[in-house]
Amino acid sequence: MKLNRLLIPALLLYAGFQAEASRPGEPIQPIAPPQEINLAKSELGKKLYFDPRLSKSGFISCNSCHNLSMGGTDNLKTSIGHGWAQGPINAPTVLNSSLNIAQFWDGRAADLKEQAGGPIANPSEMGFTHELAISTLEGIPGYVREFELVFGSPAVDIDKVTEAIAEFEKTLVTPNSPFDQWLLGDDDALSAKELAGYELFKLSGCIACHNGPAMGGNSFQKMGLVAPYETENAAEGLAGLTGIDADRFKFKVPTLRNVELTYPYFHDGEAETLAEAVDVMGRLQLGRTFSPEETEQIVAYLKSLTGDQPSFALPILPPSTDQTPRPNPFGN
Amino acid sequence: MKLNRLLIPALLLYAGFQAEASRPGEPIQPIAPPQEINLAKSELGKKLYFDPRLSKSGFISCNSCHNLSMGGTDNLKTSIGHGWAQGPINAPTVLNSSLNIAQFWDGRAADLKEQAGGPIANPSEMGFTHELAISTLEGIPGYVREFELVFGSPAVDIDKVTEAIAEFEKTLVTPNSPFDQWLLGDDDALSAKELAGYELFKLSGCIACHNGPAMGGNSFQKMGLVAPYETENAAEGLAGLTGIDADRFKFKVPTLRNVELTYPYFHDGEAETLAEAVDVMGRLQLGRTFSPEETEQIVAYLKSLTGDQPSFALPILPPSTDQTPRPNPFGN
Ligand code: HEC
Ligand code: HEC
Ligand code: HEC
Ligand code: HEC
Ligand SMILES: [Ca+2]
Ligand SMILES: [Ca+2]
Repeated sequence: MKLNRLLIPALLLYAGFQAEASRPGEPIQPIAPPQEINLAKSELGKKLYFDPRLSKSGFISCNSCHNLSMGGTDNLKTSIGHGWAQGPINAPTVLNSSLNIAQFWDGRAADLKEQAGGPIANPSEMGFTHELAISTLEGIPGYVREFELVFGSPAVDIDKVTEAIAEFEKTLVTPNSPFDQWLLGDDDALSAKELAGYELFKLSGCIACHNGPAMGGNSFQKMGLVAPYETENAAEGLAGLTGIDADRFKFKVPTLRNVELTYPYFHDGEAETLAEAVDVMGRLQLGRTFSPEETEQIVAYLKSLTGDQPSFALPILPPSTDQTPRPNPFGN
Repeated sequence: MKLNRLLIPALLLYAGFQAEASRPGEPIQPIAPPQEINLAKSELGKKLYFDPRLSKSGFISCNSCHNLSMGGTDNLKTSIGHGWAQGPINAPTVLNSSLNIAQFWDGRAADLKEQAGGPIANPSEMGFTHELAISTLEGIPGYVREFELVFGSPAVDIDKVTEAIAEFEKTLVTPNSPFDQWLLGDDDALSAKELAGYELFKLSGCIACHNGPAMGGNSFQKMGLVAPYETENAAEGLAGLTGIDADRFKFKVPTLRNVELTYPYFHDGEAETLAEAVDVMGRLQLGRTFSPEETEQIVAYLKSLTGDQPSFALPILPPSTDQTPRPNPFGN
């Protein structure tokens, strides 16, 4: 009896984690809800994520470009940064980014913690320096107390800042999309059209690159495998890091989770609609031209990948005091 | 018996609305919690308030400059607007702005509904036109449905947009500050220093202009009544509207609610600290120079005016579709 009572929840738990059990053999697995979250650290990270005082201007936060009201992106071709600088590349979503093998289109940051230091000090993003960001936080007693609570010491450094932001980003997963409900056994969760789209997605070969729970994010692949991709964007992909010519235009395969929300598409943001992106993928990656009806089915399927968006109260930030360094939006 | 049961809640209700009952005769009344809110309208207004698609760039929302994580302001001397334009005047808080007799420093908008149309079409704020903002919303089916739900017809127009935003702004009141707790009868809610500050605030004459529940917002007064205020800021105050010389430098008295959060101070944002603002007010409005100790007491009192900040889930915005006009951040 006692054994049984313990076993049943354990089995349910197992089913939760390894949720493909309901449809064995599918190449895509449901998104798991956030796990092993240090809540206090994530709450601190949430504040930092929303705090424009991490930027030189006092105006730009992580949420400016990865807006959690809009699928974790800015829905711009390329971002607007400090001084209205035009960014070089389309901003990927932060949703489910904890599932990526590496961060950035070219994977140049190993993980979320390493990534989070980048934009603060990038002159055309937040335009600040780590030193100034840290002095600003040190000048805000509400933060100093919270760093002590979370890390056991009131000292603020960039390592703790990025660790807290990364912890918050771990919570930004989006389970429970209609497709995941279907994967978990609900036959009615997808329409016939969406299912037809999924079949096409598998049979025509999209699944070769867009697989795993995030349907992407787990490999680098050449954009323009079968036919070349033409763009005016200067990004070289992996080649920018390795210098190897064969790595030219190799980008991290983007996640297709919530892809309905992350328009415009591709690293240059040149595809405005999902239909356009699907058409390009078919021709350039697979040498296949879809009929309008086929494209429609795949697009319908892709829209079934929108999961529950992270839901939380807008954070209230601890105020600056007379001692806190002030932002510098217009000066040098 | 039955009468009694009805009477007691009715009396409590009365006490809630006319909360000065506990300390009769005080010139300041507690902030009342939001009342008579049309919830569906306010939810729609909240989305619009957070939606950068009401701007030309797709990047700037009401919340960019009136950040509800930071006391309903941007904490900048003057705001950053479309194309990184430098604003002409300090952005006032939206918190408790429903209590103002009129909106803007010079009162040129009669109420919140009239005000909300301004920034969308202001070239150096959101840089858009009402027509383009409306076509954008019309191209977002999730909004069209919500306008129908709230207004009984799916037609979107600027009148409904500003009405919904104004309804949301009515919820942005901040009851329950330590000072309000004291006003409502809790003797322990203020420290001796804070109480001494309140006495000074009343006795020295601040209360002449900063009174009522918002402690301001209910009259226009000359900045530099006793001695002239020197500033490089070009704003003329009421005179800009009336053309009357006597109205020069007459500004709407700002609310002192949450003033700890709404730094920097004055219409030009030139006072960085509360101590500086209090010192200037004493000398220029009252011809009185406070000792450092007196200033400290008043500042301590002013910090007891920080109330409960509005708390709600970050809204999730309905996505654009293939038909929605796209933002234009860098073009003309
Ligand atoms: C001014 C716009 C802007 C700001 C501000 C910004 N980002 Fe980004 N972010 C981008 C762009 C553009 C990229 C893609 C850059 C690249 O791949 O070379 C990116 C990439 C990322 C990625 C990698 C996602 C992936 O799938 O590879 C993460 C995670 C991320 N940002 C998180 C953050 C955090 C955390 C902050 C704040 C500390 C932040 N960003 C601030 C624009 C911005
Ligand atoms: C050989 C690998 C590969 C195959 C096969 C492939 N993709 Fe992709 N996919 C990529 C890469 C790499 C990108 C990013 C390209 C870029 O941004 O330049 C991408 C981008 C996308 C995007 C845009 C996502 C975004 O957020 O920008 C969509 C949508 C997409 N793929 C769908 C599909 C579909 C549908 C198929 C099948 C018809 C498919 N892909 C086949 C590798 C592949
Ligand atoms: C680019 C910055 C910026 C944006 C965007 C912006 N505002 Fe403002 N807001 C200001 C400034 C600056 C003022 C003061 C202008 C004046 O008084 O002449 C102001 C004034 C106000 C006031 C008057 C408050 C008072 O006490 O007089 C309200 C209410 C307000 N804004 C609400 C909004 C709403 C609603 C939106 C979005 C539709 C919005 N603002 C967008 C900067 C901005
Ligand atoms: C004759 C009217 C008048 C009197 C008396 C007065 N004030 Fe003011 N107060 C104003 C006006 C008008 C402003 C806005 C001035 C400006 O921005 O240029 C203001 C602004 C302020 C501000 C800055 C608020 C903000 O958000 O920018 C503070 C703080 C303040 N007053 C406190 C006080 C104190 C403390 C006293 C008493 C020592 C006092 N005031 C007396 C009219 C008055
Ligand atoms: Ca995108
Ligand atoms: Ca201010």
